[in-house]
Amino acid sequence: MHNYSSAVSVAIAGASGYAGQELLRILAGHPAASLTAAMTSSAGSTARPLPKLARVWDGELEPLDTDRLASADVVFLAVPEAASAALVPDLRARGVKRIFDLSGAFRLRDLDLRQKWYPATSMQPDDVAYGLTELARPEIREASLVACPGCYPTAALLALQPLADAGLLNLASGIVIDAKSGISGAGRTPSDRTHFSEVHGSVAAYGVFGHRHVAEIEQQLGADVTFVPHLVPIDRGILETIYVRVKPETTAFEIEAAFTAAYDSAPFVRLTRDALPEVKHVAHTNFCDIGWMFDEPSRRLVLVSCIDNLVKGAAGQAVQNFNVAFDFDERAGLS
Amino acid sequence: MHNYSSAVSVAIAGASGYAGQELLRILAGHPAASLTAAMTSSAGSTARPLPKLARVWDGELEPLDTDRLASADVVFLAVPEAASAALVPDLRARGVKRIFDLSGAFRLRDLDLRQKWYPATSMQPDDVAYGLTELARPEIREASLVACPGCYPTAALLALQPLADAGLLNLASGIVIDAKSGISGAGRTPSDRTHFSEVHGSVAAYGVFGHRHVAEIEQQLGADVTFVPHLVPIDRGILETIYVRVKPETTAFEIEAAFTAAYDSAPFVRLTRDALPEVKHVAHTNFCDIGWMFDEPSRRLVLVSCIDNLVKGAAGQAVQNFNVAFDFDERAGLS
Amino acid sequence: MHNYSSAVSVAIAGASGYAGQELLRILAGHPAASLTAAMTSSAGSTARPLPKLARVWDGELEPLDTDRLASADVVFLAVPEAASAALVPDLRARGVKRIFDLSGAFRLRDLDLRQKWYPATSMQPDDVAYGLTELARPEIREASLVACPGCYPTAALLALQPLADAGLLNLASGIVIDAKSGISGAGRTPSDRTHFSEVHGSVAAYGVFGHRHVAEIEQQLGADVTFVPHLVPIDRGILETIYVRVKPETTAFEIEAAFTAAYDSAPFVRLTRDALPEVKHVAHTNFCDIGWMFDEPSRRLVLVSCIDNLVKGAAGQAVQNFNVAFDFDERAGLS
Amino acid sequence: MHNYSSAVSVAIAGASGYAGQELLRILAGHPAASLTAAMTSSAGSTARPLPKLARVWDGELEPLDTDRLASADVVFLAVPEAASAALVPDLRARGVKRIFDLSGAFRLRDLDLRQKWYPATSMQPDDVAYGLTELARPEIREASLVACPGCYPTAALLALQPLADAGLLNLASGIVIDAKSGISGAGRTPSDRTHFSEVHGSVAAYGVFGHRHVAEIEQQLGADVTFVPHLVPIDRGILETIYVRVKPETTAFEIEAAFTAAYDSAPFVRLTRDALPEVKHVAHTNFCDIGWMFDEPSRRLVLVSCIDNLVKGAAGQAVQNFNVAFDFDERAGLS
Repeated sequence: MHNYSSAVSVAIAGASGYAGQELLRILAGHPAASLTAAMTSSAGSTARPLPKLARVWDGELEPLDTDRLASADVVFLAVPEAASAALVPDLRARGVKRIFDLSGAFRLRDLDLRQKWYPATSMQPDDVAYGLTELARPEIREASLVACPGCYPTAALLALQPLADAGLLNLASGIVIDAKSGISGAGRTPSDRTHFSEVHGSVAAYGVFGHRHVAEIEQQLGADVTFVPHLVPIDRGILETIYVRVKPETTAFEIEAAFTAAYDSAPFVRLTRDALPEVKHVAHTNFCDIGWMFDEPSRRLVLVSCIDNLVKGAAGQAVQNFNVAFDFDERAGLS
Repeated sequence: MHNYSSAVSVAIAGASGYAGQELLRILAGHPAASLTAAMTSSAGSTARPLPKLARVWDGELEPLDTDRLASADVVFLAVPEAASAALVPDLRARGVKRIFDLSGAFRLRDLDLRQKWYPATSMQPDDVAYGLTELARPEIREASLVACPGCYPTAALLALQPLADAGLLNLASGIVIDAKSGISGAGRTPSDRTHFSEVHGSVAAYGVFGHRHVAEIEQQLGADVTFVPHLVPIDRGILETIYVRVKPETTAFEIEAAFTAAYDSAPFVRLTRDALPEVKHVAHTNFCDIGWMFDEPSRRLVLVSCIDNLVKGAAGQAVQNFNVAFDFDERAGLS
Repeated sequence: MHNYSSAVSVAIAGASGYAGQELLRILAGHPAASLTAAMTSSAGSTARPLPKLARVWDGELEPLDTDRLASADVVFLAVPEAASAALVPDLRARGVKRIFDLSGAFRLRDLDLRQKWYPATSMQPDDVAYGLTELARPEIREASLVACPGCYPTAALLALQPLADAGLLNLASGIVIDAKSGISGAGRTPSDRTHFSEVHGSVAAYGVFGHRHVAEIEQQLGADVTFVPHLVPIDRGILETIYVRVKPETTAFEIEAAFTAAYDSAPFVRLTRDALPEVKHVAHTNFCDIGWMFDEPSRRLVLVSCIDNLVKGAAGQAVQNFNVAFDFDERAGLS
Repeated sequence: MHNYSSAVSVAIAGASGYAGQELLRILAGHPAASLTAAMTSSAGSTARPLPKLARVWDGELEPLDTDRLASADVVFLAVPEAASAALVPDLRARGVKRIFDLSGAFRLRDLDLRQKWYPATSMQPDDVAYGLTELARPEIREASLVACPGCYPTAALLALQPLADAGLLNLASGIVIDAKSGISGAGRTPSDRTHFSEVHGSVAAYGVFGHRHVAEIEQQLGADVTFVPHLVPIDRGILETIYVRVKPETTAFEIEAAFTAAYDSAPFVRLTRDALPEVKHVAHTNFCDIGWMFDEPSRRLVLVSCIDNLVKGAAGQAVQNFNVAFDFDERAGLS
């Protein structure tokens, strides 16, 4: 067990949204972090302490203040991407050593894609890691800015990347990702889409061919995907059902071996194999559960990947990256 | 069975809210009504046709237009009370014969209470009936304006009034009404309170000692009540658990007899007795189910009353009143 | 409007399950049917009247009795397939003119497939129609036995068949059907899978590569499909997201035209086009809503198809078939 | 912070039910406990490891075995009361120092009440504490058997007892407790009552005048209560709305003071005052949140009390009692 003799000072911008609240909850109880400030997303607004967090963190959320942010060793940004795009250069200029950004501002390396999906981010700084923890620990240790992946790409890539890297997938035959997401993924701002009476008892697809998380998945995977997200009446969690074909001669053993090699020592990936994962098992945890069914004659492989969108899909992965960056126990604050 | 040779022309103002949509659905299929106009709540706004109502009613919602409203024989108002308070005198002046108002504007007879709870309604017109159908059929037949009761008072009064009228209740010992309501009762406008992630997995009390429906219940009952509404994670429906004491010597038979006498020929009240009602049995119907448990030694009586807040608690009861007023089959359009 | 001068006598076996209750509700209110008996699924058991159906149908469910069943003009079977397989020859021998079977017993024409998926049905009688109403009206009019499709195939085939028939689909490139179903589809018998605490807040895939509805879809379509059903925390409804590729040169206009031609005069299919359907809009109705998004450059077509599994996916379609068979208005009892 | 140099060995009987799983989760991560065995409720059955608990506790549940149970320093019983009634004397005879029983077997001191509600427990051993932690720390420290309270009494008594003890309540005017509970409180065994389709979209009262938790509340309070529990469509959590009258002259300040005195140093009771508690804020925690609204003129007091039924209402409180008994930090393993 680590002995965290001297705490790292951390500050949060955007602690009032759902991902931000989760970040606040985790960092307030983190054994190696000292939370020096929790701010809203804008200079003009404070926010009441959250009843749910009473006794866990009892402060009031401060208005956004770059000076105070910059006085921490580490900054977590859970603000809209335009705000991140503006804050990051400023915080770097003021000497902040490590920034963990939960927005999409710095996830895409390609300028054209950024202009299409995240137009606020004209400039991509050096020294950025795409923070899918299990697959990028070395980069995360080095980078001063970690762009934490979106929730959908996290679940998709943890299931697909090891197989793609092992050369087992027939990428040309098409990859279909059918995602089912809880409503907290739509954010805290009330809208028609998040009204209880519109969601309860219903299921709805959205963003067909047009969700910006596709770019992120395709960038990492180097292949085209068809991605359709759906809203289902749960609060937290994502389940993705992924349809691929493997290359001829691929065996069940090779699939198993690729996953085992990738995640053997990963504390937060649980391989459930043919006991397919369910959202309930990962809700409120940082786990990603991955199961699969393989039909060898037809070479069809169905992968099922589950995470809590606010933990492994957002705040939890950010803290996991923080743990990796500072060489803490990867589970610190997360179990 | 009635033969509805000539349809009555009806118009709706406020058809875009949840109660208004329900009204639209019912009236579009009503065998004796001819729906001539369906409007939003304001002169400046139209609304798209509702996907759910395609093939049932395919029109577009018009902006509010008093002239067009007034050209119908009958007007249903599902607008905020300030709008109702303004529209009613105007529509009457233009010769509309019958108005069914779903707002609270004209429910309270006492000026002081109106000023406290519905300040927009300074003037209470003559010729108004409080439209709790089962208990006011004669008044509804005569009145040119029917003030349809609120959802909570409907469930409460249908359970309490027959016992109070029969002199069985010890009104001085206190009446407690604990209500559990679906979220559609909070209206269609998105807010923190109606956000799926705030409602799902939760239960919350609100409006303790301060809900305006109390005035309505107390006015009709002539007794003080303690009323606490709660939001529960369902879309539609209200269940009220009502705690009263009966007068000494009251028997189980007398309670049963009071209910039977009141509702023997009422098509929409189902007495479930000790098989206590559940929201699921009344959702999407105009039924009010009433059950009860009586502890004779202690004289404690627990009543349970259930309705669909948008049907019997709003649109359905308005149409039921329309049926009574025009001497149609009380069930027309409602079963 | 039809004038249903003489009612057809109908009887139901298996009225206590969820589909059976729905059948009971619809037939009790059907203008051209006279419900002479409603039975459970077995000779030994009765069942209490359903509180939800009070005033709609107040009888008690009788034990299964073939003699009484056979005395009706028309029999609806909502019993397990083994019971259907046994009852059908018996009822035919006793002269029942029309049988509408909701089980899977007689859906598959191929003996090998039946032996694999519905082993109780060794014999396939002559004169059977596969009752997907919109696509089989002539056969339904002629057949004495209508095998009503499963819920998943109903939603899938109504979306796929018109395109396949028009020759627009590249069937060789693989068809993926990702289905999300409400829990009532799992039946009324309590189990771990239907326990509220296991379902609430969760999403789970099941039956990958092994659901028997696949055989039904493949039989009708003449092509292989990959089908993965999921349980989502809703009571009623199915949404299927279907991933296909169209043949080269296929245009958006041709897709539109194929659907319009198929459903132009179909009262229960609503084409929502790029306003993708949602479960909420079809729940408690006999509608099938179909929408689609087409990416012409890549020839990818995503179809979304929605039904209420107990209505269009079971009881409603059975009654729709009954209406077709007797040349009643197809909507009788269903709107 | 405590330094837990030597862990106490603990064993669980009944770890497969919902409360038992929660106990397993908490004790597996408890810094001062060493979990030596986790058993089912019966000698004949094992159970698979729980997917949700993978990486938290990966063992298989053993069949019940009194010898192995008795070899632990401390035994937690989450078995039905008949099993507890049989096991406790046996375990004591074998020298188990401390038993924490989650069943109702030993909660009632009065023989007649036990015979009525928990007939399996003819004998009440000496040296039993009623383990409502905040109000019984001294007794819990001394007792060798702690009868942990039921979930409903926990929420009710934490709200009522401080006021009753301070002499502020008019007990003669009647106490009404209207409770809303999640379905996990009904246990893990599937039944009609716990079927998703019966619960979803519904609310239902049950056990009016006949729930055995009433006896427990009345015993502790020394006053009669009217208690009506309801099932609402949530998984975890209880919200109780409690209607009482205070004695003449009682002030808002006295109410506040009684609560503050009782819970000033209680880590798991949060007084929310007029910001009424909601289930969502306590779910998955050991907190009991208590709020209230006081209408001084009428002396009516409405209390709202919220807990997670499986944590503070069962497993959490048992571990909290364990912490008190061994003089550990009361929060060990619970935050």
